[in-house]
Amino acid sequence: MTIKETAEMLLSMDKVEILTHHYPDGDTLGCAYALCLAFQQLGRQAKVTLTSEAAPKFDYLKNGVIMQDFEPEYIVSVDVASDFMLGQSREKYEGRIDLCIDHHMNNAVTAKYKCVESDSAAAAEVVYLILLEMGVTITKEIADCIYTAVSTDTGCFMYVNTSPRTHLIAAELMKYGCDFASINKVMFETKTKAMIKLERMLYDNMSFHCNDRCAVIYTTLQMQQELGLDDEQIEGIASIPRQIEGVLYGITIREKPGSTYKISVRTNGDADACAFCRRFDGGGHKGAAGCTLVGTLEEVKTALVSAVEECLS
Amino acid sequence: MTIKETAEMLLSMDKVEILTHHYPDGDTLGCAYALCLAFQQLGRQAKVTLTSEAAPKFDYLKNGVIMQDFEPEYIVSVDVASDFMLGQSREKYEGRIDLCIDHHMNNAVTAKYKCVESDSAAAAEVVYLILLEMGVTITKEIADCIYTAVSTDTGCFMYVNTSPRTHLIAAELMKYGCDFASINKVMFETKTKAMIKLERMLYDNMSFHCNDRCAVIYTTLQMQQELGLDDEQIEGIASIPRQIEGVLYGITIREKPGSTYKISVRTNGDADACAFCRRFDGGGHKGAAGCTLVGTLEEVKTALVSAVEECLS
Repeated sequence: MTIKETAEMLLSMDKVEILTHHYPDGDTLGCAYALCLAFQQLGRQAKVTLTSEAAPKFDYLKNGVIMQDFEPEYIVSVDVASDFMLGQSREKYEGRIDLCIDHHMNNAVTAKYKCVESDSAAAAEVVYLILLEMGVTITKEIADCIYTAVSTDTGCFMYVNTSPRTHLIAAELMKYGCDFASINKVMFETKTKAMIKLERMLYDNMSFHCNDRCAVIYTTLQMQQELGLDDEQIEGIASIPRQIEGVLYGITIREKPGSTYKISVRTNGDADACAFCRRFDGGGHKGAAGCTLVGTLEEVKTALVSAVEECLS
Repeated sequence: MTIKETAEMLLSMDKVEILTHHYPDGDTLGCAYALCLAFQQLGRQAKVTLTSEAAPKFDYLKNGVIMQDFEPEYIVSVDVASDFMLGQSREKYEGRIDLCIDHHMNNAVTAKYKCVESDSAAAAEVVYLILLEMGVTITKEIADCIYTAVSTDTGCFMYVNTSPRTHLIAAELMKYGCDFASINKVMFETKTKAMIKLERMLYDNMSFHCNDRCAVIYTTLQMQQELGLDDEQIEGIASIPRQIEGVLYGITIREKPGSTYKISVRTNGDADACAFCRRFDGGGHKGAAGCTLVGTLEEVKTALVSAVEECLS
């Protein structure tokens, strides 16, 4: 469906439940609360359902949202790419979604209607255009939600998914009074003491291979326990080894229960992370991919480094 | 002078020498090479003079610039806030500048004419508007220069100096083909191995005070020597202690020759870095200020922490 058709459909709805994806990020949360605020502004009943808990840093996105209890007549998902991404709520909601608003190429959500714009940097770009089409007044609260979503999904306009339209939308949101500097500070420039300790450990265990064109870091279950960090909190570390000058393959190994290791590969230049991970039955994008290996930490590391050597030769 | 008047004046010039400030950053370099490319596009002679060496990561800004040797008839400074910022070239150029293009409030350059827009996030915003007014064709190379300047001066659109116009200009530069993702990667996401080692050392010596509302890190001359890092390369570390959740005063102590310590203070919330540094005859802005102390590292640290305690009580 087009933006216009989607706006018309939303305007015909009331008693709307808005679904986010599991391990919610800034985009899914920003979309959900912006849409909820928009419905409530228009006098409709709306609520947001999180399929897993959101980090406390996102609390401000709820500003202005009225908690409403009602039996939903419509279910709308935002930034959900597949039924799998509904996580624990999959069983309850699969096949019941009326409208899916998203920006993931190959969106695979089972939904009656879909509005998917895969050239949008964030699903929130799509939501923003829909809200304008619906005639919603963009309040500071809505602007904060959309800005958070767009900024977090583009690494603050840093990544290649950023488009001229992304910047134009950011400019408009600033005119609507969004607290962009505070938002960016919380999202990009705030670290917990535990994260600092983790980074120190990672710098200590970082190893270089293949003439420094490959860097490897790892976390163990013991490290996570010691620092009290959950899986979601250590997601961000995968970007660390690729940041080092000259590194083509940046590999992050995370120990999971049962001698299992979750591998994240980030590449620079021509190195293809997806092709690399396919060797281990994984997949992803050219610059960022993942796979799972079983064994000891040393075995896993040796297997990965050998594969990098082959890819580089 | 207005943008229009400045454009007219530049169009009347030939044989132009463009001056940058010492310890050149992305803004002064981006402005200088963009303006140089513009003059050369219009068939005029132009050259850029660096008053101190630029980091190799900025080399691409020279793409397309033709090295021209001539006796200058006009001297134009870009992003230079005061004669002092001409560094070693001050004696040669002070009082000889025909036109000063800048964005620093209280610009104090001695120049015949000035175009200073203090509400611009970067001097390059002013330069960009001037180039458009001059009728210059914005090539990919010019777009790369302006984008680099704008992006580095705003922390990739993160900081409070970013305006809606900054985003609008970024959107236009992307349409002109600037390599924004590669530029941002080099400017914000690339670390040398020596920098990683330095960060590890800083995390090791980081101390917390005043119920974790103050964090302190330090570098010694020995650390710098060991890692082979010059003063400029360690400038960026001042942002590290403020990034920690709950920290109001983030203090960085850098040892200089002669038992002297250069102090950088970065604050969050209501904490006033400038008021803090004035206690030690320093100064700056509310969020970022500096001062110089003499003594041993322990003495300096104790004096600073005591002052934080007083400020917090």
